[in-house]
Amino acid sequence: MGYQLEAESDAGREFVSRCEAHGADFEARADAHDRDGTFPVENFEEMKVSGVMRAAVPEEFGGLGVASIRDLAIGLNRLGRADGSTAIALNMHLSTCWVSARLHRGEVEQGESTGMGSFLALLGGGLVVMANATEPGTDNIHPLTELSRVDGHWELRGRKSFGTLSPVADLFLVTCRCREGGHDVRAFAFVTRGTPGMDIRDNWDALGMRASGSHDIVYDGCIVPDTQVRISETPWGVQSAEEFTIGSAGTLGLVAAFLGIAERAAELAVDMVRTRTKAPDDRPLAERAGVQHLAAENEIDLAVCRALLDRTGRLLDAALVARPVADDDPVELQRLFTEFQSAKHVVNRKAIEVVDRALTLSGGVGYLSKSPLARLYRDVRAGPFMQPLSPNEAPAYIGKVALGIETDGYS
Amino acid sequence: MGYQLEAESDAGREFVSRCEAHGADFEARADAHDRDGTFPVENFEEMKVSGVMRAAVPEEFGGLGVASIRDLAIGLNRLGRADGSTAIALNMHLSTCWVSARLHRGEVEQGESTGMGSFLALLGGGLVVMANATEPGTDNIHPLTELSRVDGHWELRGRKSFGTLSPVADLFLVTCRCREGGHDVRAFAFVTRGTPGMDIRDNWDALGMRASGSHDIVYDGCIVPDTQVRISETPWGVQSAEEFTIGSAGTLGLVAAFLGIAERAAELAVDMVRTRTKAPDDRPLAERAGVQHLAAENEIDLAVCRALLDRTGRLLDAALVARPVADDDPVELQRLFTEFQSAKHVVNRKAIEVVDRALTLSGGVGYLSKSPLARLYRDVRAGPFMQPLSPNEAPAYIGKVALGIETDGYS
Amino acid sequence: MGYQLEAESDAGREFVSRCEAHGADFEARADAHDRDGTFPVENFEEMKVSGVMRAAVPEEFGGLGVASIRDLAIGLNRLGRADGSTAIALNMHLSTCWVSARLHRGEVEQGESTGMGSFLALLGGGLVVMANATEPGTDNIHPLTELSRVDGHWELRGRKSFGTLSPVADLFLVTCRCREGGHDVRAFAFVTRGTPGMDIRDNWDALGMRASGSHDIVYDGCIVPDTQVRISETPWGVQSAEEFTIGSAGTLGLVAAFLGIAERAAELAVDMVRTRTKAPDDRPLAERAGVQHLAAENEIDLAVCRALLDRTGRLLDAALVARPVADDDPVELQRLFTEFQSAKHVVNRKAIEVVDRALTLSGGVGYLSKSPLARLYRDVRAGPFMQPLSPNEAPAYIGKVALGIETDGYS
Amino acid sequence: MGYQLEAESDAGREFVSRCEAHGADFEARADAHDRDGTFPVENFEEMKVSGVMRAAVPEEFGGLGVASIRDLAIGLNRLGRADGSTAIALNMHLSTCWVSARLHRGEVEQGESTGMGSFLALLGGGLVVMANATEPGTDNIHPLTELSRVDGHWELRGRKSFGTLSPVADLFLVTCRCREGGHDVRAFAFVTRGTPGMDIRDNWDALGMRASGSHDIVYDGCIVPDTQVRISETPWGVQSAEEFTIGSAGTLGLVAAFLGIAERAAELAVDMVRTRTKAPDDRPLAERAGVQHLAAENEIDLAVCRALLDRTGRLLDAALVARPVADDDPVELQRLFTEFQSAKHVVNRKAIEVVDRALTLSGGVGYLSKSPLARLYRDVRAGPFMQPLSPNEAPAYIGKVALGIETDGYS
Repeated sequence: MGYQLEAESDAGREFVSRCEAHGADFEARADAHDRDGTFPVENFEEMKVSGVMRAAVPEEFGGLGVASIRDLAIGLNRLGRADGSTAIALNMHLSTCWVSARLHRGEVEQGESTGMGSFLALLGGGLVVMANATEPGTDNIHPLTELSRVDGHWELRGRKSFGTLSPVADLFLVTCRCREGGHDVRAFAFVTRGTPGMDIRDNWDALGMRASGSHDIVYDGCIVPDTQVRISETPWGVQSAEEFTIGSAGTLGLVAAFLGIAERAAELAVDMVRTRTKAPDDRPLAERAGVQHLAAENEIDLAVCRALLDRTGRLLDAALVARPVADDDPVELQRLFTEFQSAKHVVNRKAIEVVDRALTLSGGVGYLSKSPLARLYRDVRAGPFMQPLSPNEAPAYIGKVALGIETDGYS
Repeated sequence: MGYQLEAESDAGREFVSRCEAHGADFEARADAHDRDGTFPVENFEEMKVSGVMRAAVPEEFGGLGVASIRDLAIGLNRLGRADGSTAIALNMHLSTCWVSARLHRGEVEQGESTGMGSFLALLGGGLVVMANATEPGTDNIHPLTELSRVDGHWELRGRKSFGTLSPVADLFLVTCRCREGGHDVRAFAFVTRGTPGMDIRDNWDALGMRASGSHDIVYDGCIVPDTQVRISETPWGVQSAEEFTIGSAGTLGLVAAFLGIAERAAELAVDMVRTRTKAPDDRPLAERAGVQHLAAENEIDLAVCRALLDRTGRLLDAALVARPVADDDPVELQRLFTEFQSAKHVVNRKAIEVVDRALTLSGGVGYLSKSPLARLYRDVRAGPFMQPLSPNEAPAYIGKVALGIETDGYS
Repeated sequence: MGYQLEAESDAGREFVSRCEAHGADFEARADAHDRDGTFPVENFEEMKVSGVMRAAVPEEFGGLGVASIRDLAIGLNRLGRADGSTAIALNMHLSTCWVSARLHRGEVEQGESTGMGSFLALLGGGLVVMANATEPGTDNIHPLTELSRVDGHWELRGRKSFGTLSPVADLFLVTCRCREGGHDVRAFAFVTRGTPGMDIRDNWDALGMRASGSHDIVYDGCIVPDTQVRISETPWGVQSAEEFTIGSAGTLGLVAAFLGIAERAAELAVDMVRTRTKAPDDRPLAERAGVQHLAAENEIDLAVCRALLDRTGRLLDAALVARPVADDDPVELQRLFTEFQSAKHVVNRKAIEVVDRALTLSGGVGYLSKSPLARLYRDVRAGPFMQPLSPNEAPAYIGKVALGIETDGYS
Repeated sequence: MGYQLEAESDAGREFVSRCEAHGADFEARADAHDRDGTFPVENFEEMKVSGVMRAAVPEEFGGLGVASIRDLAIGLNRLGRADGSTAIALNMHLSTCWVSARLHRGEVEQGESTGMGSFLALLGGGLVVMANATEPGTDNIHPLTELSRVDGHWELRGRKSFGTLSPVADLFLVTCRCREGGHDVRAFAFVTRGTPGMDIRDNWDALGMRASGSHDIVYDGCIVPDTQVRISETPWGVQSAEEFTIGSAGTLGLVAAFLGIAERAAELAVDMVRTRTKAPDDRPLAERAGVQHLAAENEIDLAVCRALLDRTGRLLDAALVARPVADDDPVELQRLFTEFQSAKHVVNRKAIEVVDRALTLSGGVGYLSKSPLARLYRDVRAGPFMQPLSPNEAPAYIGKVALGIETDGYS
């Protein structure tokens, strides 16, 4: 089945190995959680124990110290093979850890001390954090959730959707709009689970990724301590350097998880056609030309997906990990973001096609609810919805950047 | 939304109109039956009343007298828009009616009288019949279900799968193998519902088409009256003229039903993007270039599908309806069958792609279980599994016929 | 090789038969004209004799009386198989004849008499006319060629490109802009060959369609008699009913010609793989699975193309031929035009893909200049450039129409 | 335009830089050589001077010492942008140099001394060598050119086709069959230019790559000195470890050259739509949604191609450059070869699609012979014909390997 992606840093290899060790258990639970729409809490407990949850936290704060975005994505790739829901929920946490570790590195490089260290210590100690960005009726750079000053404290009002990981998250990093300074800027509120006014709706019921706990979350006048608010200088509606970074490095792991789903489906299909036979000759289906052709198309598409992840991961690592944080260049970040969007666009699509062919190869068996292929087919379809930039938006964005035309990515 | 297919015969127009009249009710029930995996018995009761069930029965036997395969398919297309499960289950019955009516026409043309008339009278009177062909581990021309002579009567043993329509069928047309004459031939047993030894397993639970009642059916020593057995002269394992006919004309309606699913999904998506708005400008999504591009791709693919169904329907009608039955030419029937396979291959695939784009256009909303798009996405995926010739087999078959190389279609 | 398209009217069948009769001779000359970039004058002489040039002229004016757009396209399909350049050049003439005949029919239906009859008599007598619309730097609805009143007569100034058929045309139907009434309107000037100021540049030298004589034509102050000018009421820059008609019915034959090129290439490839053998087994290449798969893809794509042409032709005939001309409805004409654009978009693309696969099947031989496949590959690539609406514009147009958004098709 | 591929070794960077320095001159000559079908002898003279011809020769023998297959391919990628014919002709030489240098490394690792050093010294001194493998009517592992013992010397008889680089090659590495030992084995004859009985037919005349000098070469009883013959132990008709190596590492540069053609076409198209305007608004075409969509598709496809080349190059370098030659494992070599075939299959196809879109974006101008796009369109189509494994064979091969079914790749 071709050459799978391999981590290249020592910490990354260790991380990938631990992710692989979870595989059999996670996969064994996946169908039941999918059927019942339950969140695999036990998976996250086990990943706390194994250290997978602390992967992106620097070693000095108790983590595995994986700095490479590429290597993190490869671990998520392995988890995606076992259970897509777990993988995408984990990324909500890991990407926030990675961003925090990078901010900390920037502080250290500058000789600053702004306290990212204490946050990383919490993450190293087991705190589960999740990004909570998506909202109905708008896009990532135009959050409608409002952070406003009321009676001397910060108050948060709005509704988020697709709140993946919410069943076990301790802290919610909520993107919002702040109009306090007379002009609209982006802001972030870190809301502790259980804060009055926060309502996790427990209403996730979807075609796939049914175990991801992607509930709606309503913030109805939550009071957020000043220390847990960050007002950025980025005007509302502008793609900032930070968004370019999170929107590429922070979501590479999602793309890798969808590749994992496709890899698993392709593997199951190969196993089926090598062992299943058919009358009248009762020879394995694998000997038939049509089956070989479809198997080849899967092999080719997986090669394409792996290559795109490999290269994009290297480009991101070169720009965001190997260089001083202060060297971040918004123009290059947009270029990287655009390159990443190409990879995401292709991998998410081809992953769907690979699972689709696996279904075809299964000859009808895979269409039955009891087949893991049926779950994989539903799960993999979530890929193109992942933010930022869906197939509704990505080509226009990529085309404009290629042609030197300004764009905010959404209209 | 382009030009939909329209019936051309008077009987066909009447049939299509009655199918359309069922649409709203069937669609209103579809999501609940899908969720619960229940068979829409009430739909079939209503179609008995409306005459839709008797569409392919000649008027003299109480039917609507639709002889055109193309027009029958167009009615199924309309039902497919409302509920795919109902449409494909109905085709199991309608195609058998059409084949029977054609056999009767052949008898009349030859001045014969073999009794198809009395069978058509039963169908005109409300009898529900279904073809029961598919088996695990083999293909349509190599049935492993055995019909054998035991103690002076015919006994049937075997296991069928994908027994769509089984919850309400009165009579099961079971394809089987008969070795009585010293060599293996194809045979057909008409098994009355409730015959001892027949076990409808009530076990259909699949990704989609969940309301189609496609249960496994086990025949464990069913005694079949001599009058309900037909031993053909076609050797086991050979594609007969009859199979070419059933495998094309008899399944065009299935393809049309899947087009219906795609048309409905595309329509829902258009409605969504025309009414839904997004921050910051709160203009309809339909104004965005990326959305327009995807809508165009759907429009173009639907035009392709309709054209293929239109033309294939005309070719089938010209060969199988407009000419005397006795003029059937096996060589031309294979050519027609091959042309039909091309149409089926493309339409089933493009129908999936259209629903997929509708999901994309929905922006995540369509991925929620409550959206009809989620059901349409699961239902439409059943298309390529429909027999005869799946995507595992069709290209090799079509290629061989194009190159003048002999093939039985499966190996 | 599947079911080719067949004419359905008597006149159409006669026309197609005469086109087929030219095939062998035209194909025999095609490679030489392609190599030398010469116009096949002799083909047009022979088509004058055979009556093919007068196909769309009513019988009363000496023509074959083919009214069906679909049947005309099928004749061009046959010529496309022999020589694409001849086919597209002929369409320049035939489409103008068809439009003229339709205008005449409208006059007759209204009891009018505007003189289209005398023009048809000229066409029936052998006059060769060509549309001359395309210009560099603009599109069909924004012609920059100016018709203006100077010293009491009409004067024409501008530059046209892609003047296919110009080597033998007697009369040039030049689309232009007229600003005389104080506002810009579309106008048509019928310029007789040899008019002073008209310069056919004899500069056509392209990748393919090298025998089509598609020279630039410069009109540098040509004086056009008042009787040969038609000022329309359509504002400059508006898609008129007339443009919808010409842009669909008038160019269906081009699409059919490109299908013919693809059919011929596919046929040559099948012949090659059935006869060519390879070591070590020296069996025909047609027996190899990969070859069969590619042959199937060609067969499937040809079925798609034929179905689209068949259906679009029927829709056009139903709206533009079977009904009174006065019933023309601009809204329906746009819908038809849009449906036609879908067909054009797919057929032009798939025709390229079919020839490409034929090259692949040829195993390198087809890449040599001496192979007709090399010419077919270059010729077929012209398809997507044909006006109106190239792949740069068609999806956006189709999407907007599907979504109910106003568009002029170009921006 | 995304991130181009960059060499990673010092020698590789130097090589790529020198290749880039040739670009402008080579591109300036390309159209004339293409039109006239002449070989760009001056390019090869200049590459002798610049050292590009000696790139793969170790420094100790006077070369640049580029060992990385990936870096060599990247240099050819740059040349491909300027002139595809030059790039593929150069690869005929460079790949043979690389294989020779690797054989030498193996000897050194083993402490052997078989004389590869002296051959490398010749290459370092300016000798031009070319592989001469392709034959009509057979494939690479079944050469029909015979090497036989006649009158105490070796005699060569056979006909080779597609003899790219033949106009300037000094030495021809001819693959052949030798039956002397009683069983058929593969053999190699190194034939010096001008050897009696060798006839370079000077007959290359093709759709594209017209400047590549890919003439037929006939060996009609050439006497080959014993020192210039190598009889291998690989039976005729078997894929050997050597063939896996040459068929992957030895042809990666070809794939990279075709990517270069696509990159150049995409760049030309971007330039055109950014500068060309159209009535009525006279805004750059780049502002149109349809144009942006096509530009995005090119950008995405180029990202796919670059990623595949990058990853495949790394995999090849890891297995064939970073490890001792003696560690070569035939099983892994086949796996690598298969992975390479996936990359080749996709890149060659997507390169064609990119150039095709560039033509579309050019709006007709690119179809004119004077446009470099017309040449690029013809040149890029040669890609899929490159051996080993064309699209007629590659999917079946890849599918079989994925399914664990034995195959020799051709039947």
